[in-house]
Amino acid sequence: EHRARMLISCPDQPGIVATVSKFLHQHEANIVQSDQYTMDPEGGMFFIRIEFDLPNLESKLESLEKDFANVADEFQMNWRISLAHKKQKLAIFVSKEDHCLLELLWQWQAGDLYADIEMVVSNHSDMRELVESFGIPYYHIPVTADKKAEAEAKHLEVTAGKVDTIILARYMQIISPKFLQFFKNRMINIHHSFLPAFVGGKPYTQAFNRGVKIIGATAHYVTEELDGGPIIEQDVQRVSHRDSVHELKRIGRHIERIVLARAVSWHVEDRILVHENKTVVFN
Amino acid sequence: EHRARMLISCPDQPGIVATVSKFLHQHEANIVQSDQYTMDPEGGMFFIRIEFDLPNLESKLESLEKDFANVADEFQMNWRISLAHKKQKLAIFVSKEDHCLLELLWQWQAGDLYADIEMVVSNHSDMRELVESFGIPYYHIPVTADKKAEAEAKHLEVTAGKVDTIILARYMQIISPKFLQFFKNRMINIHHSFLPAFVGGKPYTQAFNRGVKIIGATAHYVTEELDGGPIIEQDVQRVSHRDSVHELKRIGRHIERIVLARAVSWHVEDRILVHENKTVVFN
Amino acid sequence: EHRARMLISCPDQPGIVATVSKFLHQHEANIVQSDQYTMDPEGGMFFIRIEFDLPNLESKLESLEKDFANVADEFQMNWRISLAHKKQKLAIFVSKEDHCLLELLWQWQAGDLYADIEMVVSNHSDMRELVESFGIPYYHIPVTADKKAEAEAKHLEVTAGKVDTIILARYMQIISPKFLQFFKNRMINIHHSFLPAFVGGKPYTQAFNRGVKIIGATAHYVTEELDGGPIIEQDVQRVSHRDSVHELKRIGRHIERIVLARAVSWHVEDRILVHENKTVVFN
Amino acid sequence: EHRARMLISCPDQPGIVATVSKFLHQHEANIVQSDQYTMDPEGGMFFIRIEFDLPNLESKLESLEKDFANVADEFQMNWRISLAHKKQKLAIFVSKEDHCLLELLWQWQAGDLYADIEMVVSNHSDMRELVESFGIPYYHIPVTADKKAEAEAKHLEVTAGKVDTIILARYMQIISPKFLQFFKNRMINIHHSFLPAFVGGKPYTQAFNRGVKIIGATAHYVTEELDGGPIIEQDVQRVSHRDSVHELKRIGRHIERIVLARAVSWHVEDRILVHENKTVVFN
Repeated sequence: EHRARMLISCPDQPGIVATVSKFLHQHEANIVQSDQYTMDPEGGMFFIRIEFDLPNLESKLESLEKDFANVADEFQMNWRISLAHKKQKLAIFVSKEDHCLLELLWQWQAGDLYADIEMVVSNHSDMRELVESFGIPYYHIPVTADKKAEAEAKHLEVTAGKVDTIILARYMQIISPKFLQFFKNRMINIHHSFLPAFVGGKPYTQAFNRGVKIIGATAHYVTEELDGGPIIEQDVQRVSHRDSVHELKRIGRHIERIVLARAVSWHVEDRILVHENKTVVFN
Repeated sequence: EHRARMLISCPDQPGIVATVSKFLHQHEANIVQSDQYTMDPEGGMFFIRIEFDLPNLESKLESLEKDFANVADEFQMNWRISLAHKKQKLAIFVSKEDHCLLELLWQWQAGDLYADIEMVVSNHSDMRELVESFGIPYYHIPVTADKKAEAEAKHLEVTAGKVDTIILARYMQIISPKFLQFFKNRMINIHHSFLPAFVGGKPYTQAFNRGVKIIGATAHYVTEELDGGPIIEQDVQRVSHRDSVHELKRIGRHIERIVLARAVSWHVEDRILVHENKTVVFN
Repeated sequence: EHRARMLISCPDQPGIVATVSKFLHQHEANIVQSDQYTMDPEGGMFFIRIEFDLPNLESKLESLEKDFANVADEFQMNWRISLAHKKQKLAIFVSKEDHCLLELLWQWQAGDLYADIEMVVSNHSDMRELVESFGIPYYHIPVTADKKAEAEAKHLEVTAGKVDTIILARYMQIISPKFLQFFKNRMINIHHSFLPAFVGGKPYTQAFNRGVKIIGATAHYVTEELDGGPIIEQDVQRVSHRDSVHELKRIGRHIERIVLARAVSWHVEDRILVHENKTVVFN
Repeated sequence: EHRARMLISCPDQPGIVATVSKFLHQHEANIVQSDQYTMDPEGGMFFIRIEFDLPNLESKLESLEKDFANVADEFQMNWRISLAHKKQKLAIFVSKEDHCLLELLWQWQAGDLYADIEMVVSNHSDMRELVESFGIPYYHIPVTADKKAEAEAKHLEVTAGKVDTIILARYMQIISPKFLQFFKNRMINIHHSFLPAFVGGKPYTQAFNRGVKIIGATAHYVTEELDGGPIIEQDVQRVSHRDSVHELKRIGRHIERIVLARAVSWHVEDRILVHENKTVVFN
């Protein structure tokens, strides 16, 4: 309860670590974990994630941030400090496939996913009973060709300012640019292929037709480019000529839920920094 | 030395296994291994690989094949019988990267690759000394824009009718359709990406730019479509934001050589059946 | 609904495949899949798994089995035929950890585990509500030092003759030899280590103390030797010095449930033959 | 050529990172990479690996080390600074299996292993020609029951003070405690099993007999306890009932050489800190 995380990205220059660690030490914070990475070549970006302990952290946070702003200015830092015990608020969007949602619900219930699941939003009503049995509100917001704008307005209404992050757990609708801008680098999608292979629809059928020997899944931040956002995590499993499209889907479901759950965990633990179209993951 | 392999593909219908196994039993062959696969749905293809033992095999092979031709006709079989102890003859094509060649040479020297490496062909002269130190002939056949036809003629001259299979072990030249037709399903390439991601040139740079978390390599039969032939084997390894293009190449080299060596082993052990643009691998 | 599976193990000799496939063909069965394996060296065992289609199978099964008994005698076969559409009946035993149970329930509900879960048996009452919400009976049978015999009698009463297979899904009680003999090769346990490393209690603590870089889980048939029965499946995941025992347990839970679910699937699909202390898995 | 690495382990306390980074900044060094890890719970150990750039490093190193000694004393640090461009000197010990040696030679030749291979030492003469063809001295030092002391004396004579690290690349002789003390945490062995499974002799036969579904290899620092030293790296590969002991050995060779090569790379890049019987690997 007195642990915080500090994430910084900025152009590299000498003295950043010294300055930041001196700052923390002077404010009586003890660094318990730090991961740092500098892009090559010279003139690259500097990234750091620091976990520190500081007694009575919550009461000191505001002044700490205020003081640090001066340091940050000097180095042109993009930065944030978050309290480790403060849970992020999540909304999970689903359509008809329940495996990714279930995995998140279980990990949440088992205490492995440290976050608050504030709501589940779906364009179908199928999973209401399941979701409500976990004590989580369920919003059924149909998305039809003629009511896109209305649906989007409802999405914004229930989520904007109310959740920190949106998880697309096999949500099969296109996200509008307008909605996206509210959740830049805060909306995670699971794509059911090893991106960039098999962008778009029916990736398991595409994989079957190409005869690949390994299939995969990809968790990424959503951007305006379809399946093109910064990749957070990928994993794969071996398949063979014996596996039909049906089998590929069955195997794929297990990869999808593991990959998405990992990505969400890293996100809520502030382990991910986004730079241009890539992620730096300190895990 | 009295073991043979029989490979069959044909449209599925009742009685194939019974007919073939009865045929072998009547000819005093003992089946020691059989792998079979029928594509779904109904009306699919039937594939089988049988290893059998038959005393004095070499002397009986011709009559066995003659007798089997009748069976094969009845079922419209695409088939072949090969002697397990008879080594395939290989030509390895390389350019400037030596890791895939070295892996094949070592596995060959260690007895893990059961084949005869008849020659190494290269558009550069760099590896002559290395190759000749293994007692293997080295053909330096330069390929320049204005002498493509000449080079192709030389390639055909040294390989056609003299080797069973050509291995492109990071050979960075396009194979002409004419040369290809001599080695249909008998020319194996290693592509340094997890196909179909990153088709074409500089796949590690492409992978770096896309920020993937896993890279791979793909061994496939060469067809007229660039990097589009039937996939034999793929493997992958996890990478991170810390890995530069240089690092991806280093990691990738280890995947490439393992994947190519596996594919070549399966090929020379008659474990691969090609159907349309896919492989059935009985391994 | 007209598909069956035939599993055979016997001492190897010439003509087994021919005899069996001829038998099936004469009985109008069509082999759609066959996997065969002969142990080396000469004088080894022969194993085969055949899937065949036969119209009106259910009505013909008895006479088919009767006829095949003669063939089986001749070759000293250990054999069985099972109907593919007939679901095995399972009992799942659990203690306090729910992850393996949940995985099985979910795969069962998703249609990925083709079996009937007849009951869940536990030495604790914790999971009653969860299990009953799936419509599955829950038997709370406490196991205390002074009431072992009583508990065992109850276990036998609820399971013997009523289920085909027992799954120990992190059931933390010793199974008595008497109970075991009722479920020889029909009781599957998940051990939370990469056996034979870390036999016995607290394997994650053992793994942490030894500083291993990869942890695993093992599904095996239960025999009288603790954690010593035939291994069905194993899988692993990479860990590092950063992972505490708590982390290892969290990572391990994901491996355990995947490995157990795979083993149970293979078992109920008749893909496993046991020979002495090993399994032949045709998957 | 102006890059150095600093490795520190010490009891954790507030201010270590601040003190060290301030020290480096004051000495005009720029931190380009830092990895840090603090063991839990409170009262644990602190580990850090820092890469820094410092112009004219070589001439300044002595005074830098002298100055840092004061800091180190204050925090009871176990520490060292090494120049990144200065190659470690290696001796490789082999017996009759050449695959691990060949992998190291190849990676060395390809520039992937940044070290000087000063010599190869063997109790057999088999690989002399191979090794000398790489321009590396070969010492044939037979080890027989009656001449152990003599062999040990020769080993010490050729290596002590002349190489930094000894690699046991499938060297099948016991290392004496006396020899060991000269190379504490500087002697790396590859064991051909997934330790702690199958300690001791014939691990592939042990693995075959136990019927495991995955085999592995383990690189570890050598200590007096057989196969019991701190584990550096492990990797595994899936096997099946089809794989004989011969096949396990063949598959295992590929795992062994990859695992050993990775461990050696990390060692020569100063990525490994040893604490009690475990390693902290910053890779």
